[in-house]
Amino acid sequence: MAEIVRAMLRRKDSRHNILVTRGDKKIFAAVKRTGGKDARSAKFHELSGAITIERIQEITGKGTILVVSAGTSDIPVAEEALLTARMMGNRAEHLYDVGVAGIHRLLEHREKLTQARVIICVAGMEGALPSVVGGLVAVPVIAVPTSVGYGASFGGVAALLGMLNSCSSNVTVVNIDNGFGAACVASCINRL
Amino acid sequence: MAEIVRAMLRRKDSRHNILVTRGDKKIFAAVKRTGGKDARSAKFHELSGAITIERIQEITGKGTILVVSAGTSDIPVAEEALLTARMMGNRAEHLYDVGVAGIHRLLEHREKLTQARVIICVAGMEGALPSVVGGLVAVPVIAVPTSVGYGASFGGVAALLGMLNSCSSNVTVVNIDNGFGAACVASCINRL
Amino acid sequence: MAEIVRAMLRRKDSRHNILVTRGDKKIFAAVKRTGGKDARSAKFHELSGAITIERIQEITGKGTILVVSAGTSDIPVAEEALLTARMMGNRAEHLYDVGVAGIHRLLEHREKLTQARVIICVAGMEGALPSVVGGLVAVPVIAVPTSVGYGASFGGVAALLGMLNSCSSNVTVVNIDNGFGAACVASCINRL
Amino acid sequence: MAEIVRAMLRRKDSRHNILVTRGDKKIFAAVKRTGGKDARSAKFHELSGAITIERIQEITGKGTILVVSAGTSDIPVAEEALLTARMMGNRAEHLYDVGVAGIHRLLEHREKLTQARVIICVAGMEGALPSVVGGLVAVPVIAVPTSVGYGASFGGVAALLGMLNSCSSNVTVVNIDNGFGAACVASCINRL
Amino acid sequence: MAEIVRAMLRRKDSRHNILVTRGDKKIFAAVKRTGGKDARSAKFHELSGAITIERIQEITGKGTILVVSAGTSDIPVAEEALLTARMMGNRAEHLYDVGVAGIHRLLEHREKLTQARVIICVAGMEGALPSVVGGLVAVPVIAVPTSVGYGASFGGVAALLGMLNSCSSNVTVVNIDNGFGAACVASCINRL
Amino acid sequence: MAEIVRAMLRRKDSRHNILVTRGDKKIFAAVKRTGGKDARSAKFHELSGAITIERIQEITGKGTILVVSAGTSDIPVAEEALLTARMMGNRAEHLYDVGVAGIHRLLEHREKLTQARVIICVAGMEGALPSVVGGLVAVPVIAVPTSVGYGASFGGVAALLGMLNSCSSNVTVVNIDNGFGAACVASCINRL
Amino acid sequence: MAEIVRAMLRRKDSRHNILVTRGDKKIFAAVKRTGGKDARSAKFHELSGAITIERIQEITGKGTILVVSAGTSDIPVAEEALLTARMMGNRAEHLYDVGVAGIHRLLEHREKLTQARVIICVAGMEGALPSVVGGLVAVPVIAVPTSVGYGASFGGVAALLGMLNSCSSNVTVVNIDNGFGAACVASCINRL
Amino acid sequence: MAEIVRAMLRRKDSRHNILVTRGDKKIFAAVKRTGGKDARSAKFHELSGAITIERIQEITGKGTILVVSAGTSDIPVAEEALLTARMMGNRAEHLYDVGVAGIHRLLEHREKLTQARVIICVAGMEGALPSVVGGLVAVPVIAVPTSVGYGASFGGVAALLGMLNSCSSNVTVVNIDNGFGAACVASCINRL
Repeated sequence: MAEIVRAMLRRKDSRHNILVTRGDKKIFAAVKRTGGKDARSAKFHELSGAITIERIQEITGKGTILVVSAGTSDIPVAEEALLTARMMGNRAEHLYDVGVAGIHRLLEHREKLTQARVIICVAGMEGALPSVVGGLVAVPVIAVPTSVGYGASFGGVAALLGMLNSCSSNVTVVNIDNGFGAACVASCINRL
Repeated sequence: MAEIVRAMLRRKDSRHNILVTRGDKKIFAAVKRTGGKDARSAKFHELSGAITIERIQEITGKGTILVVSAGTSDIPVAEEALLTARMMGNRAEHLYDVGVAGIHRLLEHREKLTQARVIICVAGMEGALPSVVGGLVAVPVIAVPTSVGYGASFGGVAALLGMLNSCSSNVTVVNIDNGFGAACVASCINRL
Repeated sequence: MAEIVRAMLRRKDSRHNILVTRGDKKIFAAVKRTGGKDARSAKFHELSGAITIERIQEITGKGTILVVSAGTSDIPVAEEALLTARMMGNRAEHLYDVGVAGIHRLLEHREKLTQARVIICVAGMEGALPSVVGGLVAVPVIAVPTSVGYGASFGGVAALLGMLNSCSSNVTVVNIDNGFGAACVASCINRL
Repeated sequence: MAEIVRAMLRRKDSRHNILVTRGDKKIFAAVKRTGGKDARSAKFHELSGAITIERIQEITGKGTILVVSAGTSDIPVAEEALLTARMMGNRAEHLYDVGVAGIHRLLEHREKLTQARVIICVAGMEGALPSVVGGLVAVPVIAVPTSVGYGASFGGVAALLGMLNSCSSNVTVVNIDNGFGAACVASCINRL
Repeated sequence: MAEIVRAMLRRKDSRHNILVTRGDKKIFAAVKRTGGKDARSAKFHELSGAITIERIQEITGKGTILVVSAGTSDIPVAEEALLTARMMGNRAEHLYDVGVAGIHRLLEHREKLTQARVIICVAGMEGALPSVVGGLVAVPVIAVPTSVGYGASFGGVAALLGMLNSCSSNVTVVNIDNGFGAACVASCINRL
Repeated sequence: MAEIVRAMLRRKDSRHNILVTRGDKKIFAAVKRTGGKDARSAKFHELSGAITIERIQEITGKGTILVVSAGTSDIPVAEEALLTARMMGNRAEHLYDVGVAGIHRLLEHREKLTQARVIICVAGMEGALPSVVGGLVAVPVIAVPTSVGYGASFGGVAALLGMLNSCSSNVTVVNIDNGFGAACVASCINRL
Repeated sequence: MAEIVRAMLRRKDSRHNILVTRGDKKIFAAVKRTGGKDARSAKFHELSGAITIERIQEITGKGTILVVSAGTSDIPVAEEALLTARMMGNRAEHLYDVGVAGIHRLLEHREKLTQARVIICVAGMEGALPSVVGGLVAVPVIAVPTSVGYGASFGGVAALLGMLNSCSSNVTVVNIDNGFGAACVASCINRL
Repeated sequence: MAEIVRAMLRRKDSRHNILVTRGDKKIFAAVKRTGGKDARSAKFHELSGAITIERIQEITGKGTILVVSAGTSDIPVAEEALLTARMMGNRAEHLYDVGVAGIHRLLEHREKLTQARVIICVAGMEGALPSVVGGLVAVPVIAVPTSVGYGASFGGVAALLGMLNSCSSNVTVVNIDNGFGAACVASCINRL
């Protein structure tokens, strides 16, 4: 992994931001050791395990991408989405711990919800959050089921099915735990 | 079916209410033809297909059972639960078409929700309603998944899994489309 | 159904287009009989079973929504998406019968693909089309699995899983056969 | 985890009981080290892995919650339910190792069964116990499938399906291994 | 079907009993029309849809095969097993409507259970009956899951899984609704 | 485990054989350490992980139980069945490595097959062996699917389904890897 | 369908054979009515529902394709494969009703098996036939699972899984009931 | 494992190549230690974990087997197929990292594709590659799904289903990750 990052850092002509998803401290240390100013600027994000090297900070997305998540255990996937959105040149904000069992926590943030241009909605267990959020806004909602849960959550299948059957018509779905993919789509929409 | 009803009507000693679930007009006509005052008082409930013969009207349940449902297509199962609860001697009310994609329709009825002693919550598709309702009240919520939906709803499995993974801790679940069973449990709780 | 349409036609204040999905000739005739200029202008679209009453023709979507589909049997779902997109105020075009087993048919239309602002990609069986299309464009691709196929297609599950695991990072997914939902999301994106 | 417990202990105003489910000896030691009279009173329950700090002993539940379980391997989940029920202010008793393959062991305890106000019924493998228990009592039975078993038990799915299809009409179901949730519902019913 | 029966009747040398499973009145009439003394002796068994032509009545099985079933809807499969056992030369008796939710109905018949040499146990829904019966006897129990039920019974899968996970060690399982197969095995055991 | 064995050894009145399934060398050493003549006679069977203490050698089964298995990897489950059958007082023999892809290896042993009174048939992967064996003999065949295989074997589900759908009518099935259970049933049949 | 056939018949330049799979007598009559010598030569094959118009009889396949099938109910799929193979220019023979429960019927035809250049092996239920056939020959075996069976055959899934887990290394698999596809592959191999 | 290899090396009469699939460095070292010229010539292939001892280098396959794979993570399975094909006496080449999301990488190699006599096509995730490759060539394509992916890839099930539903008629499928089996079939075809 560090080898790939080193190769990317060497290529002088292209100066993209670099993002390693689902890394760990060992990979981070190896990246650091590759040397050079960029490598030294690498950051490790503990919650998501992502490693980022930000080389350009230009914002190319037109609006704000908002990452909303349900429970504490969904935060790693939400953070992966948040960082990916930012590394792809978007203003990205977050709204965590607003699961549907305490609906008022979500409703208190209606303004934040309505200001976003694209929403990424991360939830495990019953995966109900995107339906509620989708009903509160008029913009596209990218739903990310997480593998959080046990027993009949079947590693995220319950949340995935819930999201595919969402009764809100502005919801689409990506694979379980795919925070990265959700941010790619959101970024692609935000550049339109 | 009419034969069984006739046998029940003949038994003089027991005077329970009689409930036929998932009947139709043909069975209703046959029941009517069995003759006698009770048979003539039989009612056919088109939405749920239930046939009821109400012979005692005593209320034995201590509080109100509230049947809440998400979409229009969930109403047949909700009605089955409502009628069953009533035939078992409970005050039962309903609150339909309050799906989570339009969360304010549900929130407008908070008073009704908080006045119930037991809540039956009927929903298909993503089955998210019980989680939201469960978060708004402190009483037991019996969740009934319905087979409403298509594709990845898998005949109610998506809703069933969503409900089993509910993040509200006062939610229990019965089988898909089992409005009758939910009302039995609710009634059993309401007599405590 | 015709009853609902009649009620919608009566409401003078709102003049939205009206779309009935998965209708048939009988419903169409009933809609026609409701009378009035609008009802008389109703059109029945045989391929998708949709009935449309177009009352406003203003284009509010900023670009073109392109509906791409794989096989002949996928066309009903594709048509549902196409009509929905149009009724919601979008320029919408289509590109049918470009399944991946004859990749050159798809590649001949690269220009059409790159001119779209949003792409809806409809496919049954192995559901591979969105991955290929996603790799050819930089805009969001909404993938719609169809229940076309038999045996191990499991009513669209094979296509659904294929799309959720797409290796193209600009692909999101809606429920099986949900051409309507895909067009809602596409339209919502196209208005940004 | 110990950090969260410490924060809870510090909050002077609220004096709830504290329950950590699925803990271990390491977490227990860390809790102990947080200091103070409450922390020192913490107990580790080996069978369920629960850690409890009992600060109030008031009984608020009206009757007895009885936890019934089938096999020896179901006891950890049963214990989690038992402790949760007690920590929530209920009188709670248990009846273990009364699986349906030795039906007389269960029948010998009919009196205990009929004295309970709510029953929690914990079983893995074929999950048949709640149906039998439900037939012996008139109170609500909360069924908890466990992931006990191998092969075609599919991590508790066999027991879960068995319970959802119970022919006893006073049975509702919670998620696999969810002893905590079952006790929450039972406690919520017991306060009615 | 009638054609096959006719061919079997013609073969003079072999004089087995003839059994048609899952037939109907039309097939029965056609069999009757094939003519001859044997065909005229054919019987149609309405509950199971079986057609039997009994040509030899010799009992070759050493003991009694007892067919036990849970609910009224399981009787067609139970009858198929009963008739098959008899046509294969066994003394066969039945014990119906002894589901586990009313355990005392089953326990009242302990003598009948203990007199059998092989037991066939037919049950749908949660499929719990074979575990209870298996615990009451020392002889082999052949469990037959039925497709009776709805929703999460998944066409007999819930009962099948329950039976495969039976905690009684004298239980084996055949395919869903396979009353015929269960009787073949039972008969094969009874001839040992 | 060793504790349970020790308790069993202490009970003077009952002198059953003792069988520990799925043990290991550590448990075996602990059993040995419990002391006494019986404990010293304990044997560890490496292939199946079983530990046996044979205290009575009387044969109570009337005929021979033959354990047949398909591939090398199925042997642990087959051995568990073989040892269980023997510890329960049966003459038990085995026939290993006779998978259906080399059908002649099986056919060479027809005599052995026809001499058995009950056959236990152990197979993973496609689980085809019981169908072939069932067609070669007239006695009951207990089929044991094993979790041997990878990918689409789904931990033994492929073999389980194959066996449940066997076209041989003398085949019944037990749970995946349940060599112990198969031997219990076989022994129970062999005592008839 | 008849319309498509008519269009194919009109195209003078290409003279391929024409094959309609899963047709019926109505389609056949319509094809006949399209007129012309070729249409008049159309044949309806009742067992498979196929309609064939043979315009060229040149054999381009190098060897014989042998279609082997297990039970009577598998014959429609086997016939579809046989006709497809022939219409594509192959010598094709068949060997039906040689299921593994009567292994000697299969073994009697070893010569026929070893003379084939490619074998198509059609089986439902446990789908064991390809493993046995694969072990008897050295040529490629294309396995076709059929949806024949009930209960735990799950519409051909049991047979499909069995075939994917075949212990014979010369077996590959096509979709459930896909006799046409199997013959396409076999023909493609036979032209090498 | 090394023991088996040693036994194979000792058998003087047969001089086949030896292939150990899914081995590791420890097994390799043990094989090396068995001594003799052949053992010393053993090679360890890190990507696939295969160990090969090439004793004969005669090419018996008539054409070239081409192994095509989609992503980097599919290479271990592809390598297993490649080595197996070579050890069985075939000319075998490879074409890696030509996934369908970058269709032009694949199309640049059309010549290589059309020169192969048999193609093995290895892909995880959506498993779309065999459909595209199958459409570009006229020779048989053996599709190998891999367990590469996460979430809704379900350990290769998504790819497996995609391949079974391939719209290219020259595609057959083997088990998940079964590179060895695919090469056996390919080799068997290549010798025809």
